[in-house]
Amino acid sequence: MVYVTRKAHFNASHRLHNPNKSDEWNQRVFGKCNNPNWHGHNYIIEVTVVGEPHPETGYVIDLGKLKSIIKEKVIDLCDHKNLNLEVSFLDGIIPSTENLCKAFFYELKDEIEHASDNNPKLYSVRLQETERNSAEYCPYLSV
Amino acid sequence: MVYVTRKAHFNASHRLHNPNKSDEWNQRVFGKCNNPNWHGHNYIIEVTVVGEPHPETGYVIDLGKLKSIIKEKVIDLCDHKNLNLEVSFLDGIIPSTENLCKAFFYELKDEIEHASDNNPKLYSVRLQETERNSAEYCPYLSV
Amino acid sequence: MVYVTRKAHFNASHRLHNPNKSDEWNQRVFGKCNNPNWHGHNYIIEVTVVGEPHPETGYVIDLGKLKSIIKEKVIDLCDHKNLNLEVSFLDGIIPSTENLCKAFFYELKDEIEHASDNNPKLYSVRLQETERNSAEYCPYLSV
Amino acid sequence: MVYVTRKAHFNASHRLHNPNKSDEWNQRVFGKCNNPNWHGHNYIIEVTVVGEPHPETGYVIDLGKLKSIIKEKVIDLCDHKNLNLEVSFLDGIIPSTENLCKAFFYELKDEIEHASDNNPKLYSVRLQETERNSAEYCPYLSV
Amino acid sequence: MVYVTRKAHFNASHRLHNPNKSDEWNQRVFGKCNNPNWHGHNYIIEVTVVGEPHPETGYVIDLGKLKSIIKEKVIDLCDHKNLNLEVSFLDGIIPSTENLCKAFFYELKDEIEHASDNNPKLYSVRLQETERNSAEYCPYLSV
Amino acid sequence: MVYVTRKAHFNASHRLHNPNKSDEWNQRVFGKCNNPNWHGHNYIIEVTVVGEPHPETGYVIDLGKLKSIIKEKVIDLCDHKNLNLEVSFLDGIIPSTENLCKAFFYELKDEIEHASDNNPKLYSVRLQETERNSAEYCPYLSV
Repeated sequence: MVYVTRKAHFNASHRLHNPNKSDEWNQRVFGKCNNPNWHGHNYIIEVTVVGEPHPETGYVIDLGKLKSIIKEKVIDLCDHKNLNLEVSFLDGIIPSTENLCKAFFYELKDEIEHASDNNPKLYSVRLQETERNSAEYCPYLSV
Repeated sequence: MVYVTRKAHFNASHRLHNPNKSDEWNQRVFGKCNNPNWHGHNYIIEVTVVGEPHPETGYVIDLGKLKSIIKEKVIDLCDHKNLNLEVSFLDGIIPSTENLCKAFFYELKDEIEHASDNNPKLYSVRLQETERNSAEYCPYLSV
Repeated sequence: MVYVTRKAHFNASHRLHNPNKSDEWNQRVFGKCNNPNWHGHNYIIEVTVVGEPHPETGYVIDLGKLKSIIKEKVIDLCDHKNLNLEVSFLDGIIPSTENLCKAFFYELKDEIEHASDNNPKLYSVRLQETERNSAEYCPYLSV
Repeated sequence: MVYVTRKAHFNASHRLHNPNKSDEWNQRVFGKCNNPNWHGHNYIIEVTVVGEPHPETGYVIDLGKLKSIIKEKVIDLCDHKNLNLEVSFLDGIIPSTENLCKAFFYELKDEIEHASDNNPKLYSVRLQETERNSAEYCPYLSV
Repeated sequence: MVYVTRKAHFNASHRLHNPNKSDEWNQRVFGKCNNPNWHGHNYIIEVTVVGEPHPETGYVIDLGKLKSIIKEKVIDLCDHKNLNLEVSFLDGIIPSTENLCKAFFYELKDEIEHASDNNPKLYSVRLQETERNSAEYCPYLSV
Repeated sequence: MVYVTRKAHFNASHRLHNPNKSDEWNQRVFGKCNNPNWHGHNYIIEVTVVGEPHPETGYVIDLGKLKSIIKEKVIDLCDHKNLNLEVSFLDGIIPSTENLCKAFFYELKDEIEHASDNNPKLYSVRLQETERNSAEYCPYLSV
C-alpha cells in the first residue's frame, strides 16, 4: 500500500464561538480567537489517499483528479470566505482546526473513493492553521 | 553597514474595498478579496534595520529590543484583529499588502531609530500575505 | 479521533559522549558530534495530542494551554542551555535526537493528559535537529 | 521504539509512459507528464528507520551511516539522471512517485537493517515530487 | 515606492551544453549537468514589480493580473517542457539559471509595464533551480 | 548583471560575551545569549555573487566551484565547532550574526573573485541564525 498526499491552500476568516454559551464564557475560553470582528488564516490542507498503485498507471489516484476534487469540494467553497457564515457544510460547527479537518474528510471521502477502479481509500486530512498549529483527522489509527 | 532582519507573525481578517467607489466597481476590481463577510491571512512581517555593528556588542540593534518594538507597534494591534475596523493607524487606508507594509514602516521607524546610540536606520518592511504574494517598502532604493 | 500538533523552537548546545567509554571510542563513534568544545542546534519540537474534540469547544486540547505546557516543561529548561550540563531531567542521558524526544515525551505526558476533561492523550513527540535529521517517539505504533 | 528520519535530495528527468499502451492512451491518461522530450523534478526523499536507541550511542541508527547508504543506493544512481533510461533497478517500472518510493524502499532495506546490531527496521520511504505532491511507502500500517 | 513579488512554479527538463564546443569540453565544464539524457528541476520564479500604489486600489499592480501574465509568458510555455528543445524564446541560449532569469525578465517586461496606468516597472526576476542554487536578474542595481 | 546565490549550512556553538566588560554588564546586555555553558544554532549562509554570465557557459560563477570555496573557507572551519574558541579568523570578534557575516564576506572575497575570468564580484553574505533572526553584509548598497 502506498500513501499519496496532495497539498492545497485557501484563505478564510472565522471566529471561535459557541452560540449555546454566554459571551463571557466564549471570551474566557476562546480569548482573542473569539473576536466578533473576525480574524483569518492562510489554511494549508493535505489530503492523503492510500491504495495499491494501479498496474496500468502507477497511480494510487491521479493527482490531477485529486486536485480537482479538493478544489470542487473544499477550496471553491472556503477560499476567501467566512467559515462561520458562508460554508453550508460547516453550519452548526465551531470552526476549530480539529472540526474543520474532520468535516473536510467527510466532504471529500465519497468522490475520492470512486475516482479510480483500484479501490483508493481516503486515509487522512491534515489542516494547518498557522505555521505552529495543525490538526489531522485519520480514522484508521488507534491509541 | 550590516542589515539585520527580524521576522514576526500575525493573523488578521480584512477585505479590499474603496468606500469612495460603488459596490459594483469594488466587486469588479477586487473580486473575491472584496467579500463583505471578510477573509483573512497569516501575515509574516520582516523588518530590516541597517547600521554599523556597535563596537561593544556587535549588534546593529538588539534583536530582542527590535522584537519588542514590532510586538508593541504592530503585532499587539493587528493580531487576531480586523484590519479595516480595529487598527486606528490604518483608518482610511485600503489594506492591500502594499499599503500595509508602508504604514507599518512609519509606525516602526521612530522607535527603532532611537533604540540604540549607533544610529540604526529602518531600511525596509516586507509583508507576506500568502506564500505567493508579498510586498516590501524600502525608501532607500531607486529605479 | 483527531490529532493536533503544536510546534515550538529552542536553541541549545550539546555534544554526543558516552562517559563509560574511552575518548578514542567516543571520537571514533561520534566523530565531529563529540567535539569537547560543544556544538549546537536550532531544535524544532512538534508535540501531537490525540482525542475527541470537546463538544463545547471543538478542541482536542486548548493549543494555548499546550503551548504553555511545552514552554514550561521543555523550552524554559532547554533554550539557550547546554543539554549535557544544565537540564536536570537529561542527567545521565546521551543527548541524541532519539533520546531527547523520548525524554521530552515523558516530561510532557502527565500535564498534557490532565489539561482537559475530554481525556486527551499525548501521541508523539518529534524533534528536528537539523533540516535533514529528525526523530520521533510514539509508543502507540508497532512494527 | 523511536523513528529517525534522514532527508536527501536529487534532481532527475522522467516521463510517465506505459509502453504496453498506445501513444493516444498515454497522452490522454498522463497528459503533460507524458511529454516525449521529458520533464524533471527536484525530488526530496525521506527515509524513516525504527528501533530502540542503542544503549551505548543513543542511536537507532548512525545517521551518518544512513546518509551514506541513501547516497550509495539512491542518490548516486538517480541524481542528474533520466529515471526511465538510466537507473537499472527502475527498468520496467513507470516512474510515478508511488512506484519510485516503493522501489527505493526495497533498494535500501537490506543494507539499513544490517547497519547496526540493535535490529533497526526500515519503516517508510517518502518521496516529494513537487511542493504539493508526495507519496510514501510504509508496509507496517494497514487500513 | 513599493515592491510587490509574485511567486510561481514550473517543472522542466534541461541540460547545460554549449553546441560550439566539443563533447569533451562540455563534459569537463558542465559535469553531470551535461547528461545527454537530460535532468530536471522544480523551478520557482519570483517576479518583483515596483511602483507607487494606485490611489484607487492600493495596488502597485493587480497581483491577479501579474499571475496571469507570468502564466501566459512563462509557465504555459515552460511547464513540463524541455528547456533546450521546446521553448522558442530560449533558442540558442544555454539554459543556466542566470540565462533563464534574464530571458524571463525580457519576456515579461512589456506586458507588466502596460498592465496598469500607475507606471509599474518590472524590477527583477529571481529563479530558484534547487533549494541551494538561485539567480536573480535586476538591471536597476549596480556595483 | 545577474546575481547568483548559493546556500550552505553549518551547526556551531557560541556565546555573546565582550571580554573587556564585566560579567554583570555581559549578563545584562546579552541575557541568555551570554550563557557561559554555550548555546548553539543551525546557521544558514547565503553567498551572492554578481557579474555578467560568461558567454561560453552561461555562468556568473560555476556554482560547484562556489560551493567548494564556501566549504573550504567557512563550513570546514565552523561546522560542529565553537565559534568563540576554535575559528582563528574569528579571534577577538564577538560572534553576533552581524559580525559573523561580515567576517565570512572577507574570508570568501578573494578566492571567489579569482574563480573565473569574467570578473565576478562577491556581492553579499547573508547569515540566518534562527528562523526569525538574520543579518546580511553588502558593501554595495547605501542609505
